[in-house]
Amino acid sequence: MATSITILPAADFHVHLRQDALMRLVTPTVRQGGASIAYVMPNLTPPITTTEMAMNYKKELQAIEPNVEFMMTLYLTADLTVEEVKKAAAAGVSGVKVYPAGVTTNSSAGVSTYEPFYPIFAAMEEVNMVLNLHGEVPPSPTNSVLTAEHDFLPTLIDLAKRFPKLRIVLEHCTTKDAIETVKNCGPNVAGSITAHHLHITIDSWADNPFCYCKPVAKTPEDRAALIEAAVSGDPRFFLGSDSAPHPREKKSGAARIAAGVFTQSRLLSYAAEIFDKQGKMDKFEDFVSNFGRKFYQVEGLGVGTEKVKLTKKPIKVESEVWDGELVVVPFMATEELQWDIEWVKA
Amino acid sequence: MATSITILPAADFHVHLRQDALMRLVTPTVRQGGASIAYVMPNLTPPITTTEMAMNYKKELQAIEPNVEFMMTLYLTADLTVEEVKKAAAAGVSGVKVYPAGVTTNSSAGVSTYEPFYPIFAAMEEVNMVLNLHGEVPPSPTNSVLTAEHDFLPTLIDLAKRFPKLRIVLEHCTTKDAIETVKNCGPNVAGSITAHHLHITIDSWADNPFCYCKPVAKTPEDRAALIEAAVSGDPRFFLGSDSAPHPREKKSGAARIAAGVFTQSRLLSYAAEIFDKQGKMDKFEDFVSNFGRKFYQVEGLGVGTEKVKLTKKPIKVESEVWDGELVVVPFMATEELQWDIEWVKA
Repeated sequence: MATSITILPAADFHVHLRQDALMRLVTPTVRQGGASIAYVMPNLTPPITTTEMAMNYKKELQAIEPNVEFMMTLYLTADLTVEEVKKAAAAGVSGVKVYPAGVTTNSSAGVSTYEPFYPIFAAMEEVNMVLNLHGEVPPSPTNSVLTAEHDFLPTLIDLAKRFPKLRIVLEHCTTKDAIETVKNCGPNVAGSITAHHLHITIDSWADNPFCYCKPVAKTPEDRAALIEAAVSGDPRFFLGSDSAPHPREKKSGAARIAAGVFTQSRLLSYAAEIFDKQGKMDKFEDFVSNFGRKFYQVEGLGVGTEKVKLTKKPIKVESEVWDGELVVVPFMATEELQWDIEWVKA
Repeated sequence: MATSITILPAADFHVHLRQDALMRLVTPTVRQGGASIAYVMPNLTPPITTTEMAMNYKKELQAIEPNVEFMMTLYLTADLTVEEVKKAAAAGVSGVKVYPAGVTTNSSAGVSTYEPFYPIFAAMEEVNMVLNLHGEVPPSPTNSVLTAEHDFLPTLIDLAKRFPKLRIVLEHCTTKDAIETVKNCGPNVAGSITAHHLHITIDSWADNPFCYCKPVAKTPEDRAALIEAAVSGDPRFFLGSDSAPHPREKKSGAARIAAGVFTQSRLLSYAAEIFDKQGKMDKFEDFVSNFGRKFYQVEGLGVGTEKVKLTKKPIKVESEVWDGELVVVPFMATEELQWDIEWVKA
C-alpha cells in the first residue's frame, strides 16, 4: 500500500464558518484541514439572505484567509425574490440553502413547505445556481431524528423531477435510503457526505456531545452505505464536511447540546482514515477534490500552485482549537489518526 | 374527571439508590415520590454479589429511611453459586439482576452469555427468586443502542421456556417489540416500565443529557406501545422507575454522559401525567401499586397505615435535588407537572 499520496487541494462543499470571534478562529482551519474551496453556509444570525450580505461575508472571510476560495450561498426564506436570485447569480453567489424550520443550528427561519418556492427554484435553474437541501422534515409528534431524513426523500425526488435542470445537492447524507435515492435521481442530483458520518453511528453520539450533529449519525448499516458510496468512485457523491463549530460550553455543560461536529482542522486526515481502511486510497482524490468541483462546475477553482500531500504517519488530534478567547473541541479530540497532511508545491 | 385519587403506596420495582453521599441524598426521595417499596439494584462499586453484602446494604438504606421496604437483589457474575442463591433466598433477598457486559452504569462485571448460568437459574426457580433482566445485548460492530433490546428478546423467550417456573422481569421495556414479547411469554414473565420512558423519545435525549439512559428512549411508536401497555390494565406490566441518579457533573460537562434519568423524587407525578392525559387514572393504582406487588408475591408489603393521595394541582419540578454536597438534576427539571402527591392516613 502507498504510504503517501499527493492530490489536488480538497474542495469542502459544506462548511460553517460562523461570524465574529468564532469565524476568526475556524476560518484558518480550512487550509489546515487540506481544502482550498469552502462552500459557505448562510445560517448566521441574522441569516445571509441577500447578495449584499453574502458579498460582505465573503470579504470578511477573504480578509482572514486569502488563500481559500469561498463559494457563497443564500438562506432560503419567504423574502427571497426571483430578482434577488438573478442578482446573486450575477454577483457570483453559487447556491441557495434550504433549512427545514427548526431542525438544526440557526434554522428557525427555515421552510416548512416547498411549493411557494417553485418560482425561486425555476429562477435558480435558469441562472444555473445550485440548490442545497438540508434533507430532513421538521420535527413532528410522529417522526424522530431517526426518520427525519428518510421522510424528506420524497421531497427530493419530487423537486428533482420538477426542475430537471436545477442542480440539487442532498447535503450530509446519513442513511442508506438517502444514498439509494440520490443514485435513483437524474444527473442533476448529487449527495454530499461528511467525514464524521463515515466514522460514527448513533452509539457514538448517544453519550458524547461532541459527536452530536444534525442529521444525527444513524445505524452501522447506514454508515456502511455511506462508506460504500464515498469510496465507490461514483461522481454523485463528494465531500461536504458540514464542519460545524460551537464554543465548547455550548456542546458540553449546556442545558441543550448544540448540534454540530467540528472537523475542519483535520478534515482530510479523518477522511483518509476511512479510505485507507477500505483499501481505497486510489479513490480518495476523486471524493475530496474532483467530484465536487465537477458537479459545481468549478474544476479550475483553487487548483493553482499547490497540492496536498498525505503521508501515513500517526498524528494526535488536538484536544481543542482555541485562540485565547474561544475553545472549540475537534472531532476525535486526543485520538490518533494515521494520515498527516502538508501543503506542497504543485 | 376526578381531581384527586387516593391509592396504596406505590411499589417501585427498579431503583438505584447508589452508595455513600449519593445514597444519602436519594434514598429519602423514594417516599417523596410516593413509593413504600424500593426494589434495589445491585450495581454498586463493587457490585452486590453476596447475601452478606445485600443485607449490609439493606441495613444502610433502612437506617436512612425506616419507612420504606427495601427489597434486595444480587448482581449476577460468574462467581455466584447455587449455595449462595439458596442462602440469599433464605435471608430474604428477592432477586438476581443480570447486566449484559458493558451496557450501562457499573455493568463491566456483567454477563455475555447465559448458558453457564442455567444451574443458577434452576436454583432460583427452586427457591422462588425473581430474575431481573437488563434486556440488551452487549455492543457489537453490527448492533446499536436502537437494536440492543430487540436483539435481546430471543434470549428472554428462550429463558422463559427453559425455566417455566422462574419468574422473570424484562426490566425497563422501551420498544413495541419488547411489549409484544412479554405478552407472548407465559405467566412467569412480566415487564417493568419506567415513568420517563412514558414521556420521552430519542428526540428528547438527543440534545439533553438529563434524558439519556440505557436502554435509550426510542421512537414515538415505541413510546405509544409503552403507554398503551401501562394504562391497559394488563397485570404483566408495572412500574419500575429505573430512577438512576448521577451527580450533575457526570451528566453535563463530562467527556462521556453517564446513563440514567433521576425520577425518584417526583415519581408518581411523572406517571400520573401520562395516565391522566390518556383518561386512564382508573388504571393508575394497578400499574404503580398493585400489579408489581402481585407478580413479586408481596401483596401485603408496604401497605400499612398510610396511603398516597394524588391531587390535580400544578407543581414545578425542582431544578435540582441536593444536600449541600451533591447535586442531582431531576427529570423535567423546572417544568410543570399536573399532579401533586401527599401521604395520608389509610
